[in-house]
Amino acid sequence: MRIGIAKRSLAEAAGMLERIAPAKASQPVLGQLLVEAREKTLRLRASSGELDLELRPAAEVEGEGAVLVPAVLFSQLVRALPGEYAELRTVPEGLELEGGSFRTRLAVADAEAFPAFPEPGGTPVKLPGEVLARAIGRVRYAAAHEEYRAIFRGIQLELRSDRLRAVATDGFRLAVFDAPGVSGPDLKPVIPARAADELVRVLKEADGEVALYPDASRVVAVGPRFRMALSLMEGSFPDYERVIPAQFALEATVDAEALRQAIERVRVVADRQSQRVDLAFGEGRVELAAEGEYGSGREELPLELSGETPMVVAYNAQYLIDALKGLKGAAHLRLSGPTSPSLLTGEEEPGYLAVVVPLRV
Amino acid sequence: MRIGIAKRSLAEAAGMLERIAPAKASQPVLGQLLVEAREKTLRLRASSGELDLELRPAAEVEGEGAVLVPAVLFSQLVRALPGEYAELRTVPEGLELEGGSFRTRLAVADAEAFPAFPEPGGTPVKLPGEVLARAIGRVRYAAAHEEYRAIFRGIQLELRSDRLRAVATDGFRLAVFDAPGVSGPDLKPVIPARAADELVRVLKEADGEVALYPDASRVVAVGPRFRMALSLMEGSFPDYERVIPAQFALEATVDAEALRQAIERVRVVADRQSQRVDLAFGEGRVELAAEGEYGSGREELPLELSGETPMVVAYNAQYLIDALKGLKGAAHLRLSGPTSPSLLTGEEEPGYLAVVVPLRV
Repeated sequence: MRIGIAKRSLAEAAGMLERIAPAKASQPVLGQLLVEAREKTLRLRASSGELDLELRPAAEVEGEGAVLVPAVLFSQLVRALPGEYAELRTVPEGLELEGGSFRTRLAVADAEAFPAFPEPGGTPVKLPGEVLARAIGRVRYAAAHEEYRAIFRGIQLELRSDRLRAVATDGFRLAVFDAPGVSGPDLKPVIPARAADELVRVLKEADGEVALYPDASRVVAVGPRFRMALSLMEGSFPDYERVIPAQFALEATVDAEALRQAIERVRVVADRQSQRVDLAFGEGRVELAAEGEYGSGREELPLELSGETPMVVAYNAQYLIDALKGLKGAAHLRLSGPTSPSLLTGEEEPGYLAVVVPLRV
Repeated sequence: MRIGIAKRSLAEAAGMLERIAPAKASQPVLGQLLVEAREKTLRLRASSGELDLELRPAAEVEGEGAVLVPAVLFSQLVRALPGEYAELRTVPEGLELEGGSFRTRLAVADAEAFPAFPEPGGTPVKLPGEVLARAIGRVRYAAAHEEYRAIFRGIQLELRSDRLRAVATDGFRLAVFDAPGVSGPDLKPVIPARAADELVRVLKEADGEVALYPDASRVVAVGPRFRMALSLMEGSFPDYERVIPAQFALEATVDAEALRQAIERVRVVADRQSQRVDLAFGEGRVELAAEGEYGSGREELPLELSGETPMVVAYNAQYLIDALKGLKGAAHLRLSGPTSPSLLTGEEEPGYLAVVVPLRV
């Protein structure tokens, strides 16, 4: 095979795939990149075992063939290429990569050893790629880190008859994003948040529609120039709807960015462990206060209030900051009380809601 | 005391000082920042024990006083301040910091505990700060990392009657930069490269002349709004002049950036341990070649040659890249043979020379 391709396209694809191929793979074949020419199309593929990604960047392709090359090294080489244009050629000794006056020859491994791409089946749900990327991106922060129960490290995609919903929660906070106008078969696959990050990365590069094929063990996403198979997480996702509060004692409207920045400041002196920041609501203002080992800090913000005042609620500062991040304009903070969950929504972002559980005082 | 200051100036100063104050100090007082108002001047000071820095940012100062605050926390708080203007005040409970609607109060420690700034003595050498920064910055790369003999981790500043010279070497390569027009007392203090980095940082923010006061145990640098005391390294600096080659078998003239970029590419496939890249000089060109576990790479560059060809010399790619970095236009590479040191100079950078010892073939 012989492939001519814009260096930038090849570098972008190799960079994306390099992220999937595990640096220290349990099976050496997973550290490899599959370079395949078939049906006049270049296919580049990597697999982490849990996550498979195939990219088909625009290229001129002659002949057919498939080889494995080390993913990280290949990506480094492509990035370093001079000029605008790259050529790939299989030769008896391996794979040749050429750009400008630079030429390299890589030892290759047998492509047969590479895991097959999981074939999608059933009826797909189709939606604009940017809607899917936005839904995942909007709730991602609320998924848990390593130390929590596995299912909390997932993002639930709810495919319903009237919408797509993305949900993430770590048990202390919850984020939900609804994208209307999408119709699905009433399934709720839970995908690992880290795999979802890679899907978002791919979607941001790809224009157009994406088709999701969910089945019992995975979701396959198929776009114009890529396909990605994400293994589902096992276990049942928490019954989150019951923690979304419906009755409120106090409702505040405040500029989202101003509130976030004020919390960022006050939390610098907060207790390092708890990250506790107190919000004292009263008479057209909220006073933020924190106190830690080295001192104390406070700041006042004007806001619109209706309901029971005064009320003091303590939050983990990071949770509020995460929930507010990306919101512009007016945010509505609805409190059900100092110890029960608070609801946060943004006026300019319909579809998004966040729940933050206050700290026990 | 009561201090009014532009937030940006305070944040810059605190950021610089935070770098000096060790995060995990052997003596807790070294993690502190001294905030002092004296003679209508704000003085901010940090010490690592080996390196003392005092900054005097422009400020409005009322009263006198001195307190210690945690350096990292103070810097974080200042960075987070809203608005353009900050106010510092001592109050009975500590130090108050205010900006916009944000106010914080920090617990303070007794300023008496802070080490005194080493007083400079003797006759100083005066030179433009940018010349000193440039001299150090130009040779810094050749100083050794942790694993080498201590003295190789230093930069020698040679103060002579007709010039300042900065020198660094790790035993495998050498960098020298001469700044003419500076006259000194014929001293050769060796300062730790890491301390020198901090001096360069400070000099880049400070305009104007800097006075160096070298003595037996330290160099004190005094600028318009700062002073810094750097402890000298012990031991004798290598007799580097004898490794600078004076006779050459081959002389090549090549575009510095083109050569560096070509080496960067070829080295991607080089042996990871040795980083070996072969340069084969012949007939108006050099061919760069490397070979490693995963494959091989080569690239050809045109150049002007005079002397014995063909000649093949093997280098550690990183050493050549470092030596070439920052050079623009034509570079002269003078070879004394395949196993003896090579000399590199840049046409547009008089004063700079680098020596790289080839790898044993």
